[in-house]
Amino acid sequence: MKAEIISIGDELLIGQVVNTNASWMAEQLNMAGIKVNCILAISDQKEQILETLRMASKRSDVLLLTGGLGPTKDDITKKTVCEFYGSKLVFDEDVFKDVKSIFGKRGFVVSEVNRMQAEVPDNCTPIHNKNGTAPGLWFEKDNTILVSMPGVPFEMKAMMEGFIIPELSERFELPSLLNKTVLTHGVGESSLAAIIEDWENGLPGNIKLAYLPQPGIVRLRLSGTGKDKADLQSQIDKEVSKLHGLIPDLIFGYDRDTMEEVIGGLLGARKATLGTAESCTGGYIAHLITSVAGSSGYFEGSVVSYSNSVKEKTLEVSSKTLEEFGAVSEQVVLEMARGAKKRLNVDYAIAVSGIAGPSGGTDEKPVGTTWIAIATPEKTFAKRFRFGEHRGRNIRRAALAALNMLRLELTSF
Amino acid sequence: MKAEIISIGDELLIGQVVNTNASWMAEQLNMAGIKVNCILAISDQKEQILETLRMASKRSDVLLLTGGLGPTKDDITKKTVCEFYGSKLVFDEDVFKDVKSIFGKRGFVVSEVNRMQAEVPDNCTPIHNKNGTAPGLWFEKDNTILVSMPGVPFEMKAMMEGFIIPELSERFELPSLLNKTVLTHGVGESSLAAIIEDWENGLPGNIKLAYLPQPGIVRLRLSGTGKDKADLQSQIDKEVSKLHGLIPDLIFGYDRDTMEEVIGGLLGARKATLGTAESCTGGYIAHLITSVAGSSGYFEGSVVSYSNSVKEKTLEVSSKTLEEFGAVSEQVVLEMARGAKKRLNVDYAIAVSGIAGPSGGTDEKPVGTTWIAIATPEKTFAKRFRFGEHRGRNIRRAALAALNMLRLELTSF
Repeated sequence: MKAEIISIGDELLIGQVVNTNASWMAEQLNMAGIKVNCILAISDQKEQILETLRMASKRSDVLLLTGGLGPTKDDITKKTVCEFYGSKLVFDEDVFKDVKSIFGKRGFVVSEVNRMQAEVPDNCTPIHNKNGTAPGLWFEKDNTILVSMPGVPFEMKAMMEGFIIPELSERFELPSLLNKTVLTHGVGESSLAAIIEDWENGLPGNIKLAYLPQPGIVRLRLSGTGKDKADLQSQIDKEVSKLHGLIPDLIFGYDRDTMEEVIGGLLGARKATLGTAESCTGGYIAHLITSVAGSSGYFEGSVVSYSNSVKEKTLEVSSKTLEEFGAVSEQVVLEMARGAKKRLNVDYAIAVSGIAGPSGGTDEKPVGTTWIAIATPEKTFAKRFRFGEHRGRNIRRAALAALNMLRLELTSF
Repeated sequence: MKAEIISIGDELLIGQVVNTNASWMAEQLNMAGIKVNCILAISDQKEQILETLRMASKRSDVLLLTGGLGPTKDDITKKTVCEFYGSKLVFDEDVFKDVKSIFGKRGFVVSEVNRMQAEVPDNCTPIHNKNGTAPGLWFEKDNTILVSMPGVPFEMKAMMEGFIIPELSERFELPSLLNKTVLTHGVGESSLAAIIEDWENGLPGNIKLAYLPQPGIVRLRLSGTGKDKADLQSQIDKEVSKLHGLIPDLIFGYDRDTMEEVIGGLLGARKATLGTAESCTGGYIAHLITSVAGSSGYFEGSVVSYSNSVKEKTLEVSSKTLEEFGAVSEQVVLEMARGAKKRLNVDYAIAVSGIAGPSGGTDEKPVGTTWIAIATPEKTFAKRFRFGEHRGRNIRRAALAALNMLRLELTSF
């Protein structure tokens, strides 16, 4: 069984709106075991809608339309679908009750334009919309199901969750479909591929692997299909466990985990506190950590020592060390970490100093050169990294590398 | 002339990734005067890619593909496009130089898998990729242009801006189309609409207005079409100038300006220095400021005082004030600003303390309550804000409000 998502609206084609509706729907359908065949965004033009419906009904079993059901002139989906199915509009008393109730809640009287929202094609089943005036429209013809929904996200979501997905799940015998995403940090896509090549080649035919790289992170997504959900789950668990055996230190989490949440969990479990001393990352590590709700339980604060003067006065980095080795050096970053641990009175401290770019690089220390230190209750150690030339990505990659160094320390690799 | 965007990757069809590439491309094309006919997301499967290319080349003049150009097995776009055009792969020395340079910068040797990135179809023009190993591929056949790009956003964007859009603009006679985006902060979309209603109603027919709201910012985009570019430019300039007369204090910049760049420019012009004291924003303001290249010229650093202990010890907030008024109070935020000014030895200091949520709110101080103070060489003052309930957006909005308070002070409104 194949579903197809068709988003209707010019705002998508001029890039004014990002199609988050489609990705949300795709995720929900996928989790229900319904395969999404393709996602389209098309304009509010009758001919293009008709042509798209003709094509889509040939290749997919379920067409899910959003958009163009509002009461204004540019909303033409309802009458176009009517034309596609040769149906005519009839006034529906039940839908009109919904419309009146929506207006009643807001203290308004139903206008003539909104009364027309209760007109529905005679060959469809209207879907109740508790959040707006446009009902969903459910059509079935020639083995194709077509559902038209409003484009307003929370109206569409309520219909999908409350009616459409349960209904589709009942109609079709759906194959089990499971995804597991493994999050890695430490090596790039191609190096990772080389390390796990044998494992990848040995994957069963019903499990596919995708590499999803981001700056500093490579996500590995395993997608499996099968008849029995429990069997499939144990099959995927087995493969993930094999993978973990190959690259235990590179895996920092699964699915929607973030590095900063993982760090928070590790610190929370130890009842340990953290602080940061940031030069080139400029507060970004502190921002990542504090973007996690509840981080005040383990995060004390940070000294963003962008200038040498702050490094000296607040982190007690010695002026001699700064002069002798430069701000981007092992010696300085070690002193920063020790200084932050003392100043912020924490168990663990992260310190970063690097050349984010675009200027400031030298032959010896090109843009991207970054020193990261970790102070623990027992020791302080540092490592040098070479990132790229792009300022924003250097900051992001340095922050992830720093958090990962702490993670490895907290998990004792 | 019609363009079509085809995004390739299963991650889009399972809803794991939101198709922001497509909306960015659509926006850029639209601004260049190129109409986007439709946007598709399809899977990494040969047959579906081939079928899509057959259909799309019938209905559109330019096909812009992203995704599936990586070095790993699941990346099949290159060989599928080869099959579509009946071309064969040949090794390209120039592309290989690019690949080697990417690896050289990172201190790695090119692996066999990555050497294959330099193989390109014999009937295409490779597009230089300065940010990654996969070149873009530009094909022309039977009056259709097909361009295949990597799916990594910054690689794709560099190619679009640096080569593809300029090249398309040169090939086709595009109508003059000009955009000017006015960036506002301070009032929400509907209030802003009420303030500028008369101006909006008086806009000439060839200039359209779009409201593009983001947390804390409303962008107003004027899009004009016309025959003569210079006339159109002066027409738009005139309208922007009228708008500026109506809301001088709400406008903080234009087009791709950011609040943090504007602040940087103002501080740089005064040769003044800045520091921040951040509680609920957790280093995010410092991060915004230091994301601007050259910010070390005016930014000294920050004290992220997430805990009260850091507020007391490093910012010299008195324990009595903390006890009497609580951390989220006018008194504390004023002391934080004064403390930061002294500790970081700066001309201007920003201090923020608030309840980002989701927990920590009370009846008197609900989640979203935020105090912001500014210290200048002459004075220190504070203002209370009430943001919403969403942690991430509260942090973003607090940071923008704080920077805007400083902006208004620096521009003396």
